[in-house]
Amino acid sequence: MTEQKLSDAPAAPGVARTAEPAPPSTLPGPAGPAVPGPDAVSALRPLGLDQVRLTPEGLLGDWRRRNSAETLPHCVDNLHGSGNIGNLLAAAGEGEQSFAGMWFADSDVHKTLEAALWELGTSPDDTRLAAFAADTVALLARVQGPDGYLNSYFTIAEPDARWRRPEWSHELYCAGHLIQAGVAAGRAGVQPGLLTIARRFADLLVERFGPDGVSEVCGHPEIETALAELYRLTGHRPYLDLARRFLDLRGRGLLGPGRFGPRYYQDHVPVREAREVAGHAVRQLYLLAGMTDVAVETGDLALLDAAERLWDDAFHTRTYVTGAHGAHHRDEAYGDPYELPPERAYGETCAAIASFQWNWRLLLATGRARYADEMERVLLNAIAPAVSADGRNFFYANPLQVRTGHVGSGEEATTHRLPWYSCACCPPNIARLMASLPGYLATADERGLQVHLYADASLTVPVAGRTVAVEMRTAYPWQGRVELTIDGEGSKGGARWTLALRVPGWCDAHTVSVDGARAEATVRDGYLRLTRVWTPGTRVVLDLGMPVRQVSAHPRVDAVRGCVTLARGPLVYCVEQADLPAGAVLEDVRLDPAAPITATRWADLPGIPVVLEARGVLADAGEDLYTAGAERERAGAPLTLTAVPYFLWGNRTEGPMRVWIPLATAG
Amino acid sequence: MTEQKLSDAPAAPGVARTAEPAPPSTLPGPAGPAVPGPDAVSALRPLGLDQVRLTPEGLLGDWRRRNSAETLPHCVDNLHGSGNIGNLLAAAGEGEQSFAGMWFADSDVHKTLEAALWELGTSPDDTRLAAFAADTVALLARVQGPDGYLNSYFTIAEPDARWRRPEWSHELYCAGHLIQAGVAAGRAGVQPGLLTIARRFADLLVERFGPDGVSEVCGHPEIETALAELYRLTGHRPYLDLARRFLDLRGRGLLGPGRFGPRYYQDHVPVREAREVAGHAVRQLYLLAGMTDVAVETGDLALLDAAERLWDDAFHTRTYVTGAHGAHHRDEAYGDPYELPPERAYGETCAAIASFQWNWRLLLATGRARYADEMERVLLNAIAPAVSADGRNFFYANPLQVRTGHVGSGEEATTHRLPWYSCACCPPNIARLMASLPGYLATADERGLQVHLYADASLTVPVAGRTVAVEMRTAYPWQGRVELTIDGEGSKGGARWTLALRVPGWCDAHTVSVDGARAEATVRDGYLRLTRVWTPGTRVVLDLGMPVRQVSAHPRVDAVRGCVTLARGPLVYCVEQADLPAGAVLEDVRLDPAAPITATRWADLPGIPVVLEARGVLADAGEDLYTAGAERERAGAPLTLTAVPYFLWGNRTEGPMRVWIPLATAG
Repeated sequence: MTEQKLSDAPAAPGVARTAEPAPPSTLPGPAGPAVPGPDAVSALRPLGLDQVRLTPEGLLGDWRRRNSAETLPHCVDNLHGSGNIGNLLAAAGEGEQSFAGMWFADSDVHKTLEAALWELGTSPDDTRLAAFAADTVALLARVQGPDGYLNSYFTIAEPDARWRRPEWSHELYCAGHLIQAGVAAGRAGVQPGLLTIARRFADLLVERFGPDGVSEVCGHPEIETALAELYRLTGHRPYLDLARRFLDLRGRGLLGPGRFGPRYYQDHVPVREAREVAGHAVRQLYLLAGMTDVAVETGDLALLDAAERLWDDAFHTRTYVTGAHGAHHRDEAYGDPYELPPERAYGETCAAIASFQWNWRLLLATGRARYADEMERVLLNAIAPAVSADGRNFFYANPLQVRTGHVGSGEEATTHRLPWYSCACCPPNIARLMASLPGYLATADERGLQVHLYADASLTVPVAGRTVAVEMRTAYPWQGRVELTIDGEGSKGGARWTLALRVPGWCDAHTVSVDGARAEATVRDGYLRLTRVWTPGTRVVLDLGMPVRQVSAHPRVDAVRGCVTLARGPLVYCVEQADLPAGAVLEDVRLDPAAPITATRWADLPGIPVVLEARGVLADAGEDLYTAGAERERAGAPLTLTAVPYFLWGNRTEGPMRVWIPLATAG
Repeated sequence: MTEQKLSDAPAAPGVARTAEPAPPSTLPGPAGPAVPGPDAVSALRPLGLDQVRLTPEGLLGDWRRRNSAETLPHCVDNLHGSGNIGNLLAAAGEGEQSFAGMWFADSDVHKTLEAALWELGTSPDDTRLAAFAADTVALLARVQGPDGYLNSYFTIAEPDARWRRPEWSHELYCAGHLIQAGVAAGRAGVQPGLLTIARRFADLLVERFGPDGVSEVCGHPEIETALAELYRLTGHRPYLDLARRFLDLRGRGLLGPGRFGPRYYQDHVPVREAREVAGHAVRQLYLLAGMTDVAVETGDLALLDAAERLWDDAFHTRTYVTGAHGAHHRDEAYGDPYELPPERAYGETCAAIASFQWNWRLLLATGRARYADEMERVLLNAIAPAVSADGRNFFYANPLQVRTGHVGSGEEATTHRLPWYSCACCPPNIARLMASLPGYLATADERGLQVHLYADASLTVPVAGRTVAVEMRTAYPWQGRVELTIDGEGSKGGARWTLALRVPGWCDAHTVSVDGARAEATVRDGYLRLTRVWTPGTRVVLDLGMPVRQVSAHPRVDAVRGCVTLARGPLVYCVEQADLPAGAVLEDVRLDPAAPITATRWADLPGIPVVLEARGVLADAGEDLYTAGAERERAGAPLTLTAVPYFLWGNRTEGPMRVWIPLATAG
């Protein structure tokens, strides 16, 4: 995939680099994540969750259906089974006074609750989910202390340690997830009592950590974006001010060196001065989401610049081809520039989700297509792989290579998806993202409609004060054809506005037609823009060329030298042992770079709509581990290589897999 | 370096594959590590420490001098400064009742004491060292309980947990190092009171863990080899039986799964059934040393076969080109087969030392040259790099690549040597190895003298009951010429015996002369054997050809595809930023594989006697992290590449370094 350089990307029309607010959207209804406040620096305005309906026939719609039908109930069951709910009951004085699981286990409850509230915002009839939400909010109300404090671990297990261990306690991290659930309650219009709980806790935080309080930050960022979101919902400025204060206090050594040094929790340099992403990837990416939120809400363009500068570093030197982040297992951290080993990729699922959320914020702030490109890449190639086809098993780490003879060590290094983890941050995180997914597809304002992610969906959106109905029919990402039918009030009476369709960075050739006639429309800043007076029933067809691509990495990525990965459209492919001839060792497979690669649609492989077929060869190099001389590999038996979408790997049998395929060398 | 396949290596004459003991050595004097007992299966018999004198002019002699003059006193100072001695004083009831450092901190005292005793065995006049030894042994005597127990952590910090946490307590690990120090006391004839202390503890272990006691093993192997060594010294069979019992109990799930699973501490499979090395590398290698010791002392050839089978796995699929072991930081563990990333190599110094010790045991047992080859490789390329030129700074992990922009995280991932570590296992381990180094150079018996490691040294060895004096003059490893002058009683009176000189696996061409006349001597199983009637003053000159070699790895080692490392003689070389032109980025350097590479002797670089010079080029590939298409690299400016011995890296300025150099591709 081609990354655009910052210097190559001109500011797009509509990119607000001044504090001028963009026009607000006007339709009522449940709002989604990260809705900018009325005064925010924001190039784009998000839609409400009820304004985009994903049809279950499409890939994203089916995934969201599976999330609702399988993943979310599975999370609820496991919160009970793993003791998370029991911890809260104990903290409410209603159960056995013992604590189970990680000390930040409350956050998994909060994330699952957030998912349930997004879901209930558009599907209020799910009675089981409604009961979970009602019960859990009532329980949280009973746990909350008179001062607003709410954390089961520091209530029952270590009450004397409350607020005493900012490096490791995750107290503000858990508070942040509670607040995000409260914001979801407010935006979805479900269980408003949770918003009250969240505000009571947030008010305590303002009192304790505000300008008249202690100067401390949390070892695990999350509170910053949560407080900014709470400000957006409530308009209560002290929440935003506290979020900014947490950002400004960071990087001043308040957390101490810790086990892995201050970079681990981004405390090594003030956020405005950072030149590179560092440390624990999830922490870094949540922090960047908070930076972006605070920047746009306060009009602090220097802070936004700092965030975009870190984007350049992360995406030009430290991101896997799947969009995954984090090379190191030991500290779940970013490695050095270009240190991206596929076989020991950490690529934590939560980091991919955090990247998606952060890129969404940057997209809203700037309107730059590179952020939407990245949302697509990470969603389909780093978040989607983490969920099994049945929606009830998950990866925590997402390697790009599994070797013959691989043996995992510990939960974080399995090569099959597990139903739950002792540190179960990822499954509920997936649940909340997918529950709110409709909010991320498109944006709209006075000027028109902008489509960022393609999916089979129906949109009912406010454009210049009038409702436009859009039927988007597509088999994307399996096919590059996207058909949009424009209807509704906004297509009548001489309404003139711009339909902006993202042309992904990976796409070299596209065509567009309007009512069957090829339209001339140039791509500006990554979006094809059709500005016209619309009439009801106008049919726009965008055809994105999807030839198979061989993608190579910068040669400084030593770990994949001499290799390519196969991609088609937005999808990265991989080779699995399951598709090799008997006896072939995956590590010996080489790709013939000159031979054609064909995409075979609707193949026989169950659940894998499009596979790629290429010509390869098995290499032979003897048994010695090291030998004198530069050349030793000999070409052996030819074979036909079958590649499957990476996000579907490991759904058939467990076994070796690799994304990067070595090229056959001469001989 | 060429690895010999097991199937290629015929059993050498003198390789004892039956229980027939080899002839014992006869000269008295301090013995070194791993001296086989009189009934052991043993192809070779080690020399006493006083029978080999390394001259300080040579590389190994200078290193041992530095170890004695700098490293060992530095360790003693740090044992005081870091609280290790304080812990023991507290346990003796003589100091503040608090514990400092890791719970296994006693082991660092024991290893330093072992080093001091080896050193005092040949240098009894070192009064400062003698005082340390005397004081420490007296202190240990005061700490030891009436039942023989000796462990400061479980005496003062957690007395109730004694013997309660076999997975993590390291109690038997610490006992093992105490016993090894006791064995050194006995063999060196210094501080015999320590042997008494060690035996008292060992007797307690026999009582507690013997056939009538509990069935437990220690999470960190070490006790097995220690008890076997104590048996060798004392002849007390219950020690050997307990060592065997610990081996036989392993792999039966007694330790529980633990954080990283049972493979981490080699408890996943019975030792006799293991087919591959696994888990924490130091634990695996110490366990293998114990397996080999018990195998040869009990005549258990099946157990010896099991150890050699694991050698094949380790050295054909999981060993770095430097001889380092352990790819993973998180669990300090072996990776999958061929998973050997240079940039994230763990390569713990202690694992390299353990490998050296284990290969020595296999060499003695079998006489196979591959074990001596490996001792040389790991000593010069994985242990030597861990010590700074001043002998007072150390690496814990030994990466083969440091990138531009690298930032370390935590003590175990520094790119400069540190004076001490919070887990300071490595520095005292180096000290004890180097203090006993003379014992590893050669072996001798009725049949003759076998020289395994070349160094400037004087040997006085017993051959067939008569003393042979050998002056070995060489600038090895900088030059391949080794001159040996044979003298002494064993060179007179028609004495006929065989001088066996190892021809390293890396050496393709050698010549040998006797008194100036080229001698015809074939190499059999890695040793050139000169059998003759000797006369006083006979001069044997072995010339080992040392052309520069480009060494490549098996292509399954994806991480170094398209790269070679430069080697000359036994030394692996690397390129450091310090030798690049200003502005050149090390990751962009390519080697021209066709151009000649020259070895420049006695170069201007201080402390680096031989550098290599090659022709290279700087590659240019733009800034995009991923691009469509398989080819993108363009050749840029040519440059002269300078490579320095890897073991000397990081002694000038801190900066990028790499062992594996990508080859220039066409264009």
